[in-house]
Amino acid sequence: MNLPVFYIDDLIKRALEEDINYIDLATDYLLEDDDVSTARFVAKASGILCGIDIAVRVFSFIDSDVKSDIKIHDGECVEKGDVIATVTGRTKTILKGERTSLNILQHMSGIASETAKYAECCKGTNAHVTDTRKTLPGLRSIEKYAVVVGGGKNHRYNLSDAAMLKDNHIDAYGSLTNAVNALRSKVGHMVKIEVEVRNEEELREALACKADVIMLDNMTAEQMKKCVQIADGNAVLEASGNVTLANMAEVAATGVDIVSVGALTHSVKAFDISLKIEK
Amino acid sequence: MNLPVFYIDDLIKRALEEDINYIDLATDYLLEDDDVSTARFVAKASGILCGIDIAVRVFSFIDSDVKSDIKIHDGECVEKGDVIATVTGRTKTILKGERTSLNILQHMSGIASETAKYAECCKGTNAHVTDTRKTLPGLRSIEKYAVVVGGGKNHRYNLSDAAMLKDNHIDAYGSLTNAVNALRSKVGHMVKIEVEVRNEEELREALACKADVIMLDNMTAEQMKKCVQIADGNAVLEASGNVTLANMAEVAATGVDIVSVGALTHSVKAFDISLKIEK
Amino acid sequence: MNLPVFYIDDLIKRALEEDINYIDLATDYLLEDDDVSTARFVAKASGILCGIDIAVRVFSFIDSDVKSDIKIHDGECVEKGDVIATVTGRTKTILKGERTSLNILQHMSGIASETAKYAECCKGTNAHVTDTRKTLPGLRSIEKYAVVVGGGKNHRYNLSDAAMLKDNHIDAYGSLTNAVNALRSKVGHMVKIEVEVRNEEELREALACKADVIMLDNMTAEQMKKCVQIADGNAVLEASGNVTLANMAEVAATGVDIVSVGALTHSVKAFDISLKIEK
Amino acid sequence: MNLPVFYIDDLIKRALEEDINYIDLATDYLLEDDDVSTARFVAKASGILCGIDIAVRVFSFIDSDVKSDIKIHDGECVEKGDVIATVTGRTKTILKGERTSLNILQHMSGIASETAKYAECCKGTNAHVTDTRKTLPGLRSIEKYAVVVGGGKNHRYNLSDAAMLKDNHIDAYGSLTNAVNALRSKVGHMVKIEVEVRNEEELREALACKADVIMLDNMTAEQMKKCVQIADGNAVLEASGNVTLANMAEVAATGVDIVSVGALTHSVKAFDISLKIEK
Amino acid sequence: MNLPVFYIDDLIKRALEEDINYIDLATDYLLEDDDVSTARFVAKASGILCGIDIAVRVFSFIDSDVKSDIKIHDGECVEKGDVIATVTGRTKTILKGERTSLNILQHMSGIASETAKYAECCKGTNAHVTDTRKTLPGLRSIEKYAVVVGGGKNHRYNLSDAAMLKDNHIDAYGSLTNAVNALRSKVGHMVKIEVEVRNEEELREALACKADVIMLDNMTAEQMKKCVQIADGNAVLEASGNVTLANMAEVAATGVDIVSVGALTHSVKAFDISLKIEK
Amino acid sequence: MNLPVFYIDDLIKRALEEDINYIDLATDYLLEDDDVSTARFVAKASGILCGIDIAVRVFSFIDSDVKSDIKIHDGECVEKGDVIATVTGRTKTILKGERTSLNILQHMSGIASETAKYAECCKGTNAHVTDTRKTLPGLRSIEKYAVVVGGGKNHRYNLSDAAMLKDNHIDAYGSLTNAVNALRSKVGHMVKIEVEVRNEEELREALACKADVIMLDNMTAEQMKKCVQIADGNAVLEASGNVTLANMAEVAATGVDIVSVGALTHSVKAFDISLKIEK
Repeated sequence: MNLPVFYIDDLIKRALEEDINYIDLATDYLLEDDDVSTARFVAKASGILCGIDIAVRVFSFIDSDVKSDIKIHDGECVEKGDVIATVTGRTKTILKGERTSLNILQHMSGIASETAKYAECCKGTNAHVTDTRKTLPGLRSIEKYAVVVGGGKNHRYNLSDAAMLKDNHIDAYGSLTNAVNALRSKVGHMVKIEVEVRNEEELREALACKADVIMLDNMTAEQMKKCVQIADGNAVLEASGNVTLANMAEVAATGVDIVSVGALTHSVKAFDISLKIEK
Repeated sequence: MNLPVFYIDDLIKRALEEDINYIDLATDYLLEDDDVSTARFVAKASGILCGIDIAVRVFSFIDSDVKSDIKIHDGECVEKGDVIATVTGRTKTILKGERTSLNILQHMSGIASETAKYAECCKGTNAHVTDTRKTLPGLRSIEKYAVVVGGGKNHRYNLSDAAMLKDNHIDAYGSLTNAVNALRSKVGHMVKIEVEVRNEEELREALACKADVIMLDNMTAEQMKKCVQIADGNAVLEASGNVTLANMAEVAATGVDIVSVGALTHSVKAFDISLKIEK
Repeated sequence: MNLPVFYIDDLIKRALEEDINYIDLATDYLLEDDDVSTARFVAKASGILCGIDIAVRVFSFIDSDVKSDIKIHDGECVEKGDVIATVTGRTKTILKGERTSLNILQHMSGIASETAKYAECCKGTNAHVTDTRKTLPGLRSIEKYAVVVGGGKNHRYNLSDAAMLKDNHIDAYGSLTNAVNALRSKVGHMVKIEVEVRNEEELREALACKADVIMLDNMTAEQMKKCVQIADGNAVLEASGNVTLANMAEVAATGVDIVSVGALTHSVKAFDISLKIEK
Repeated sequence: MNLPVFYIDDLIKRALEEDINYIDLATDYLLEDDDVSTARFVAKASGILCGIDIAVRVFSFIDSDVKSDIKIHDGECVEKGDVIATVTGRTKTILKGERTSLNILQHMSGIASETAKYAECCKGTNAHVTDTRKTLPGLRSIEKYAVVVGGGKNHRYNLSDAAMLKDNHIDAYGSLTNAVNALRSKVGHMVKIEVEVRNEEELREALACKADVIMLDNMTAEQMKKCVQIADGNAVLEASGNVTLANMAEVAATGVDIVSVGALTHSVKAFDISLKIEK
Repeated sequence: MNLPVFYIDDLIKRALEEDINYIDLATDYLLEDDDVSTARFVAKASGILCGIDIAVRVFSFIDSDVKSDIKIHDGECVEKGDVIATVTGRTKTILKGERTSLNILQHMSGIASETAKYAECCKGTNAHVTDTRKTLPGLRSIEKYAVVVGGGKNHRYNLSDAAMLKDNHIDAYGSLTNAVNALRSKVGHMVKIEVEVRNEEELREALACKADVIMLDNMTAEQMKKCVQIADGNAVLEASGNVTLANMAEVAATGVDIVSVGALTHSVKAFDISLKIEK
Repeated sequence: MNLPVFYIDDLIKRALEEDINYIDLATDYLLEDDDVSTARFVAKASGILCGIDIAVRVFSFIDSDVKSDIKIHDGECVEKGDVIATVTGRTKTILKGERTSLNILQHMSGIASETAKYAECCKGTNAHVTDTRKTLPGLRSIEKYAVVVGGGKNHRYNLSDAAMLKDNHIDAYGSLTNAVNALRSKVGHMVKIEVEVRNEEELREALACKADVIMLDNMTAEQMKKCVQIADGNAVLEASGNVTLANMAEVAATGVDIVSVGALTHSVKAFDISLKIEK
């Protein structure tokens, strides 16, 4: 999986405009144009790397003559102290792009590393961890990409590509069954329909009307296990609500297919990486 | 302080395009145009609110007829269960804008609430907490605004508006003194110059060449106290590096003027707020 | 279903910039600012109307004081001579927006009207007509919307929201079964997988690996009937390739679920509508 | 004639964003990065090629390492089965760009091929076929370019670059003569003025006030011939209204200088071209 | 003539982003939201006003509640001390928009006022003053509009809407006559052709091949008079090169139709206008 | 100092879109694609060059195969007749980019050359000339860059990066001292505060509250000298208001540190440079 360049480039440009505006006072006034350096991206923690191609690409927006050597690729483990990549070019260029490059790389690696911990909890079960639509404005693509790189799967991208029925939709049609049937008669044949249920009764109704995916909303592990039995493979079951690393393994072990975790993208901890110019 | 509308609107539009694309399958196919609702933003945690004007504005991009009533404003405390605001309009519009609105509001309130905790640690000291340039791509304005709303102050916005001398700049001029003097002779008269120092010797040199601000890089509380004594009010002192809520009070108590905390913006925990349609 | 305003507005702005640039020579130099008129959108053919909200919105980009009265709405039949809507405002504004407004309205109504003819051929069968990704650059949203308005359904919007396996993907994995299984293990749980088949053998393999949708590529009606028998409801069957109004009814009658027609969007005939200022 | 790159690139980017969003599920998950192919653009009909440079350029937005070999250029005839061009690069890149590339190429070639048929009808006459402002939103440049490539000429690009007087303008000044004189006194010296006339009387008035171009609105061939006699070379005469391939030759033979045909751009039939990866 | 809103708004937004970024430190931190003021635009020189609608519109980008009262309109004379308009709204809004509003208004009024001086020199002659393509990047529309407001006329807007033959074009065809004929056979019927000539011989050739407009390049007044005699009304004559206010009247008196002056737009002197908040 | 490419490219693209639209009629219809030329930028006046990298870059937006050889760089003196640079490429490309390239280069060199004259007047004094926020919409970066290239310094870039207190701010707080103190307690530690004063009394108040910079508003040279004595190096003094080349030396000699001149950017005279294709 590779994020398309045309997608990434707007993001990089936006970030550089914020961070540089028209001049880097210290760098532009003090350094010479012909001063060339090599800088190393070094991990200051251990986890899963994500975003290094984008991080390196940032410099090309400042100066087309930067060369890079990527030693660890997206999805690979990094240990504290590892040299991830080097960039060689005008020192001015490296200093100007440093902050923007690291801000992107640390955010993406933070997501991938956290996702990997949740994925680890799924080992030996049928479950997969997925993201949600709780992403930061303008960053959905790189955040969803980072989830995949970390070993998770992507939930739907937006409201157009798959349908999820919530209370308000169901209320408007009198019953879950009516709502699912109405929706199925209208959406395209490539669209899956997911339904939120809060108890066994709703689950049975959702199964009866052949919802593709059924979200078990804020249930206990016990309740989920029961739901898994009832569903018996006739729909994909998604656990959702208050899942953390502390209870992830327990949830995954219930037999659900999917565990969706908003915190993967709405509460990201930056993964510490530095860029150091070699003396 | 108010973020200008022309700034916010691009952000909202970008987020809606990601989240909706061209249709909300469930909502557009199931709900009637003339179905009207009122929804309440309700706090599900306690902290400092930030971004409610923007959160409410999101709906106006979908339908110009949404009315809102903001009960708690940016910078005010919210307790779990508080009704922050209501929006009234077509149910379709509320459902389509919900996720985008909450994503922004939760991120900004998360920053403000965390900043407030750091600011609290400064009580009874001279210190102020400030952000850094470690912001997420495209979100610098709303993140810096949230820091102020939470009781912090803003560090420089970008590389053009204030100058910070780092190793590479100093190396290029042979000495800190030479570099500061060279830079001062070139930058405009509205620009402050900050210098990073790692020990007393460098501090004394920075003071001697009248740097406006001196950053104490990764020092212990003891070292900082010594620096405060040496500086004796002749420069603004900024503590930087590895400051967390655990040691913030100790750092603030050293007498430094500024404590900069990257985590305020690079590792944000979403503040939990829901949007519920009233039945 | 309503296209979101933030989506439409870029399209309108782009079209007006092309059509007006900075001045309408004849109108700006000859007409008075206070000359007010009412103009009527009049159908000059019979079919399904589509795009009238957008057509009317165009004028608001030139002057915020235009009032409109829409008499026939998207999805309704129009007969030659019907007054679809009126707009009242400065004559200058009406003349400047006329061409852009009509270009959009005629294109969308052309698609909706043509789709309706195909949908008509499906009456009494299980089949639905759908669009493809063969849309014009920058117009996918309004074209897909017009297909729905005309009584069709939307195929996937883009390469991210549903998966279709073609020769090259299958070749890379040695067999259709291997490719489907590999893909299923990687995509999110909200993604449907479609497979192209050219004969019964491939169909059976696709069914065996539980593809959600199977595209019958360029088959005769006889072949399709046979495929319907074989599939026996175990997958959605999509007929594709060289379907025209001449053979649509025959294809629909084979029992397939979906008939996709590229010409709905790649070869659109404008639906004739005029805008006449009342004397 | 070459469309400038800065113009085309926005169009390509817009189209790719619609068609790919952030990932090509099948391609990104199934193919290897180092799998390289050559694909051939093959004509599946006969006509005039248009847009091949743009079609090939599409791939460079996904991956800068695609090589192309264009064998048939814009404006040249293609016969069914002809290999138009080849592109060689990562298979992933070719599959991701295929649809966008073909959508543009087929639209432009459709216009050029249809224009060529109208131009053919002008052989042996003074007449030229031209486009109108009835273009699709955002596509005017590539559509007008395609008309030229097909052997037609371009009418004015927009309302700023040449002036056409319609009823409403004339009514505002009491008479055609007054309106033309008023307009001539105001527009720049590089602007031509065209006037719409419906009968001989109006034609004579338009000639008397030296309109540069006179549009014969919806006249029969007989009427046009009479107008040609009356004008006697003192103004450019443009036939407009309901011209189709069926009557084009007859209209061209009346002696008019220009025949404008809205259908060239408002009702385009895609020209069938495929892109096949060589095994 | 009115510049379309969709055109102006990008310009205003761009200017505000430059001038405000995310906060107005002094205003946002010191003034109260409910502090309301009225401010007056006051002329500090005498000339022709231009851009007041745009200047007032600027404030609506910051806050939608600003009211304005325009007392002097575009194209009217202003004398030093005249109150041009008032704006009433939040003091914060007025202070934030002030600089951007004035920068636009002063530039446009500067152009209109200078143009009026050149137009004055044409009184009693056939000549009109026109602009050139020597405009500032991104400002062509507002600059060309200001020339018209000042009493001048617009030369062609860009390279697409009218044709001017220069040396290089002529050289490529061996002779001026060949080049004009070649070009005429290719351009659309709404395009005028202008030819640059440097002497009588070239003038006669340009007349013989019926160029619509002939530019007399850097000629003396005597030479121009001779050219006017030779042309005898058979082409529009445009004087170009080194025309200043000092020699404008002399050039206009030669009988040429058009005098083009690059300095109208490439060397603009701001027209002094202030915005003062009433105490 | 180098303007970042991502900043410049939007400007170039905007200018080319204005100047070319979709075709250069004369050039595209008359010249051959394989006709190659070399053109020389030649100074037609004497001054300081600025913008040559951008001027040359313009051509790369039309055709990637243009080569350039820059002989005189930004900040160097040019004399009338000097060859500044050559560009070699398709003649079509050179002719299409010529006007846009020169418009930018002449504007920037005009600013640099005028700034140099003011800077010359500062020789032997402490004073430096600086720009203001009176820049043209969308051009602030290139204008501020040109001021530095001409030997001046940059005032603040925008309202976010440094604070200037004006009447309205002071009035809101009752006194200059109150306003400065209030502001200082709120702004970040990297922000300088400037205060406008009109007389000695205000100056003494501003000094007492330790304003970083004090603007002497419209004072006579005598008054300024007195202020310099009073300030005695305790604040940066900025002279502002009605400074022209005629009185610049006198103002600079008063001992002020900064002289700000709005005319550097609001009333720019283009510096004459031509681009001539070598025969």
